Amino acid sequence: MDIKEIIAEMHNQEIDSLIILKPENITYLSGFKPSNSSILVLKDDPVLFTSKMEMDDALNQSKIQVEELKSLKEVKKMLRGTVGIENSLPVSTYKKICNDFETKLTDVVEFSRIIKSNYEVNCIKKAIKIAETSLMNIEISGTENNVAAELEFNMKLEGSIKPAFDTIIASGIRSSLPHATVSPNNVEYPVVIDWGAVYNNYCSDTTRTMVESEKQAEIFEIVLEAQKEAIKVIKPGIKASYVDKVARKVIEDYGYGKYFIHSTGHGLGLEVHEKPLLSQNDESKLHEGMVITVEPGIYIKDEFGVRIEDVVHIKKKAVLLNKIKKKITV
Amino acid sequence: MDIKEIIAEMHNQEIDSLIILKPENITYLSGFKPSNSSILVLKDDPVLFTSKMEMDDALNQSKIQVEELKSLKEVKKMLRGTVGIENSLPVSTYKKICNDFETKLTDVVEFSRIIKSNYEVNCIKKAIKIAETSLMNIEISGTENNVAAELEFNMKLEGSIKPAFDTIIASGIRSSLPHATVSPNNVEYPVVIDWGAVYNNYCSDTTRTMVESEKQAEIFEIVLEAQKEAIKVIKPGIKASYVDKVARKVIEDYGYGKYFIHSTGHGLGLEVHEKPLLSQNDESKLHEGMVITVEPGIYIKDEFGVRIEDVVHIKKKAVLLNKIKKKITV
Repeated sequence: MDIKEIIAEMHNQEIDSLIILKPENITYLSGFKPSNSSILVLKDDPVLFTSKMEMDDALNQSKIQVEELKSLKEVKKMLRGTVGIENSLPVSTYKKICNDFETKLTDVVEFSRIIKSNYEVNCIKKAIKIAETSLMNIEISGTENNVAAELEFNMKLEGSIKPAFDTIIASGIRSSLPHATVSPNNVEYPVVIDWGAVYNNYCSDTTRTMVESEKQAEIFEIVLEAQKEAIKVIKPGIKASYVDKVARKVIEDYGYGKYFIHSTGHGLGLEVHEKPLLSQNDESKLHEGMVITVEPGIYIKDEFGVRIEDVVHIKKKAVLLNKIKKKITV
Repeated sequence: MDIKEIIAEMHNQEIDSLIILKPENITYLSGFKPSNSSILVLKDDPVLFTSKMEMDDALNQSKIQVEELKSLKEVKKMLRGTVGIENSLPVSTYKKICNDFETKLTDVVEFSRIIKSNYEVNCIKKAIKIAETSLMNIEISGTENNVAAELEFNMKLEGSIKPAFDTIIASGIRSSLPHATVSPNNVEYPVVIDWGAVYNNYCSDTTRTMVESEKQAEIFEIVLEAQKEAIKVIKPGIKASYVDKVARKVIEDYGYGKYFIHSTGHGLGLEVHEKPLLSQNDESKLHEGMVITVEPGIYIKDEFGVRIEDVVHIKKKAVLLNKIKKKITV
């Protein structure tokens, strides 16, 4: 959505001015990515307040008028009418500048971020390409930490300022922990590789699992089937929870339901985890223009785990944005 | 401070239970670093709520009793009496679980984090060592991005899970921007290198500037003098603002006052920027056990900049934790 549409939606919600501290929302609206605390007051004549140190960058990059952040009093002067506040607004800021106003919680900006523009989809595609190329150019051997270091090094050379999140190289028994990052151990099988790059502030997020034994290969096929079935049903109008249900059903039918201990996916963009959440409880509907991950997994405690994660762009149906093969071998 | 002392201080402030969402504060109190949203309710019998996916890690690492975070209702049931809330608590959580309670803003946990234990100082020292060794093992040549990639690669191999912040390799005219990270340009002089490692969740933060021309060398000497004078006056009992004043006075006396556009330093620990802030406005006093950075800089717009940053541990006087020389040459 462009900024005028967001302001119109804000007015629809009977909000006259909206305080934004969340850096990704400021980036989305202004084009400027603050590294220090900045505050954007969104209204018909929006103003971005930023620190003295970041003034030059902000003036160069921001589509919104920039002023130096000297005190919260100055910010407060910009507020008018009913003041919209974001879920993540720190309570201290809320108490300091909202006390004289009627306030209303709103997720209007994050909601508008769900539908990606062509520019945004292209940034995500580029981030995926950086991540995939970087993985293809390393050997998966040595320690988990070493593999992650080489992968992150390649991504940086390819233009990713930083990893989108702490790279996961979780192998052997550690693959059974969905959020293990790396260890100093040599890689064993299976190897769960969950990694992402950042391009123009947009993230990629992909997982591949390299398997070896027959049992690992069997679990791999189940997870892959769950992912394929889930991707097949994705289209505008269905509920986010339905995608989760389809993936979960496949895994349950094979008797591994209790080992699928997370949601099936999530939105992807300026943040690695955005709305919607493809979970059992998310009753929101999918829309054309969303970019989401689909990542079923099976984690057998004290044995091993397998996860496969791809990114899809929802058009008339799901369009896969990843190019890398599902099965990676040494 | 240990957790009992913090709870005692909480009671001193007439707070019966304290809601903590800030990940660094949860890490500090429990020993467990949450990657997902976790909530700690601090009280005489504290409870840490975390997601299903992180339960195993939390159970292994947390010194505090762990329960699965199923709903905010369950968290609310744990609250009692006057509820302490942190400045950073998201307003939506505040509105959902604090509405039936008397609340009080408190920075008791962050305040207790200011004084570092021996364990914490050792972690910071180790992070500094990783960072310094990693820099000494690379050549400062090629593109800024390439230099940063190699530096981060070395830090990862040395045991830093990630850089403490986006590595700054800002050279030539870009050195005049205190927060420029990297560019695809080849390094020119001067080169500002501002980098940090993480060890056991604790950060390092150091800056070196490589200079070439006579004017650059002249500015370097002024910044170095400012830093030395500032470090010299650091001891328990003086105001944080006084350290800033001393550094600023040196730079002002040479006529470059208006080019020193940030504060003189900050606390360092689980976060790169912690209390205290060595700024003109911080009237708090320095105490034995603090770990702070001292980082004056001069930024001449459209020309170049120089910054020198070291970490000191405050004992009877400032003890320098960095070993790397102030002047780095190729």
